[in-house]
Amino acid sequence: MTERIGFIGLGIMGRPMARNLMKAGFTLTVWNRSQPGIDELVKEGAAKGSSPADVARRSDVVITIVGDSPDVEEVVLGPRGIIEGAHRGLAHVDMTTMSPAVTRRIAERLGEAGIEMLDAPVSGGQQGATDGTLSIMVGGREETLERCRPVLGAMGRKIVHCGPSGAGQTVKLCNQIAVALTNLGMCEALVFAARSGIDPRVMIEAVSAGAGTSWQMENLAPRIVERDFRPGFKVAHQGKDLRLALEAGERVASPLPGTGLVQQMFAALETDGLGEEGTQALVKALERLADLEVQ
Amino acid sequence: MTERIGFIGLGIMGRPMARNLMKAGFTLTVWNRSQPGIDELVKEGAAKGSSPADVARRSDVVITIVGDSPDVEEVVLGPRGIIEGAHRGLAHVDMTTMSPAVTRRIAERLGEAGIEMLDAPVSGGQQGATDGTLSIMVGGREETLERCRPVLGAMGRKIVHCGPSGAGQTVKLCNQIAVALTNLGMCEALVFAARSGIDPRVMIEAVSAGAGTSWQMENLAPRIVERDFRPGFKVAHQGKDLRLALEAGERVASPLPGTGLVQQMFAALETDGLGEEGTQALVKALERLADLEVQ
Repeated sequence: MTERIGFIGLGIMGRPMARNLMKAGFTLTVWNRSQPGIDELVKEGAAKGSSPADVARRSDVVITIVGDSPDVEEVVLGPRGIIEGAHRGLAHVDMTTMSPAVTRRIAERLGEAGIEMLDAPVSGGQQGATDGTLSIMVGGREETLERCRPVLGAMGRKIVHCGPSGAGQTVKLCNQIAVALTNLGMCEALVFAARSGIDPRVMIEAVSAGAGTSWQMENLAPRIVERDFRPGFKVAHQGKDLRLALEAGERVASPLPGTGLVQQMFAALETDGLGEEGTQALVKALERLADLEVQ
Repeated sequence: MTERIGFIGLGIMGRPMARNLMKAGFTLTVWNRSQPGIDELVKEGAAKGSSPADVARRSDVVITIVGDSPDVEEVVLGPRGIIEGAHRGLAHVDMTTMSPAVTRRIAERLGEAGIEMLDAPVSGGQQGATDGTLSIMVGGREETLERCRPVLGAMGRKIVHCGPSGAGQTVKLCNQIAVALTNLGMCEALVFAARSGIDPRVMIEAVSAGAGTSWQMENLAPRIVERDFRPGFKVAHQGKDLRLALEAGERVASPLPGTGLVQQMFAALETDGLGEEGTQALVKALERLADLEVQ
């Protein structure tokens, strides 16, 4: 394991992922938009790059996990971006959830500079990032994935090659679509139960035993009943991902009526100042209409 | 185990459930609207009742699992209905999925005649009925449930007391709400994947590993990819259940925007002659809009 890893984006997901790479024995050079994230990792043994370009210059594989498409464009193609640190054999693995179309455009620009790019967004939240059990959905050349697999394996448990460049992002959006509607079904069932005078805990127990069950029902419904809205995954981030899904759906002419509905509800929650709560706060959109609280 | 069981409604669900009761050692008297269902069970050892009233007269516990609210009203309160066979200690367990409000009205009428009623709708489909692994959601008095528990235990694995009369039906509708939206999320993800050039099998594998997973994604999505639309649970029945959910939701002022959307899609499929297909045929509503087939 001789690869030198660059890591850009030391947020709530990036920090534990970078730590897992160091634990696995990789040498890390890090960069972040703000200083405190860098200091923390440097204290734990990472080297500090002076810019994304500098990180790229000093690495064989550079990983990015930042906010959204424009942030990726900036650290990759912007001034002192990764592309300026291009060298023979450099691979770029972008683990941000972003637009499949923008991903393909960036991959093309990087390809012209001799840099192989993988899109490798993740599912599993902060807990999965900490435990190294993320699901990683990968788009790009299979050879590049094989080369980077030991690196990804230090951060995730399930690594699925989804197809060419952008395919990882597309499958991540499929994941968010499934999550969004399962979440809505759970929330409608909870509000309907509470409004009907049923103990929502009993409903969760009964429904979890059959065809109505889901990761959301088993993991998030109990938190709602406890009025625990701390984020495993934030309303604002899911709102962004659903906007990406609707944009991509329009581009490929794939109708997403349910996703559109949930996206509008998340947008309303954000407008209402709930962007930092967990996605289970979707129930609040229904509770306000019904004028009650599930508990 | 001395209880004599009456069984009314020998359809796709009722037949295997009645068989499991006989296997468990209960004595059965059966009745069905059409003769062939009766003949089959009589050949296997059940006695034949001449009417629902006759079945009730000869039983300690009489079970019904028929089509919908009006069918239950007819076999219970109609001419030669269960109520006419009322005798001391008779209990009626209705396992049809029907309106919680109508359930409460019937329970009240039966109560006046000295018959205890439980609503005990099930989840698990034909397979669960055959295997004796149904989830049973029970409304009514706890004492009546305790008395009937050995009978229910011969047909199901998970038996949850949900509350007073009608509560079993309400929780069953919660189940259908959760199922409906999880189904829609799965279908939107599949069509979006196919439209985007992603192998839907790869999408199913990746999404099933994380927070987007559900019983529907794991069990029904693979059938869609194989173009297998045989019913585990029929479009027409889910359409009926979602109508019941919307009616009940309106009665208790619980907003169900997502359920309303899916109900409309099921109604369109029924109008289009697909009522006898499995609920995974929901994908066809999206496929027609997108003009493609997921496979």
